[in-house]
Amino acid sequence: MENHDNCPVDKALKIIGKRWNAIIIKNLVGGSKRFCQLEEGMVDITPAMLSKRLKELEELNIVERNVIPERPVRIEYRLSKKGLALKDVIDGISKWAVDWLDDG
Amino acid sequence: MENHDNCPVDKALKIIGKRWNAIIIKNLVGGSKRFCQLEEGMVDITPAMLSKRLKELEELNIVERNVIPERPVRIEYRLSKKGLALKDVIDGISKWAVDWLDDG
Repeated sequence: MENHDNCPVDKALKIIGKRWNAIIIKNLVGGSKRFCQLEEGMVDITPAMLSKRLKELEELNIVERNVIPERPVRIEYRLSKKGLALKDVIDGISKWAVDWLDDG
Repeated sequence: MENHDNCPVDKALKIIGKRWNAIIIKNLVGGSKRFCQLEEGMVDITPAMLSKRLKELEELNIVERNVIPERPVRIEYRLSKKGLALKDVIDGISKWAVDWLDDG
């Protein structure tokens, strides 16, 4: 007997499946990126939406915001350990999609 | 440069992340089930919603509907090869959730 709200898969999918989150995480797998670099990697996201999602992912401890004390200050985003642990998950989803979804 | 709509991860997440789908797939990983058995495995789904999702998953070739010519006719649902290939994906999501999401 499985209650939807207590299902771990479902809790995770609420995060990973939220629009933009998987792409943001995928873009950060390679290492730290600045806001503008993330923006360049995703053609149709608005800066406001990217900012919103980064904040949410920060609150979930998936993304870390790193302020580098240069002049001018540089802000970089990177995956936490929790976020990096999603790499294999997203790779698995990607593999399944490539293997099984052949529509446009 | 990645367009959201062409991203394979995103296409897959639209399916897996749709409410109920992951739980239905998880419930079918162990083998064929009848409608009532699936219903029992998910406390808060309505029969109409379960029926709708099964039909969608059938159209996506993830679930197969098998009519067994007994008297009375028995109908069973099972995962196709495409659906079974989601087992590892869902296991990966589940593992991440158990490892990293500790809220209630």
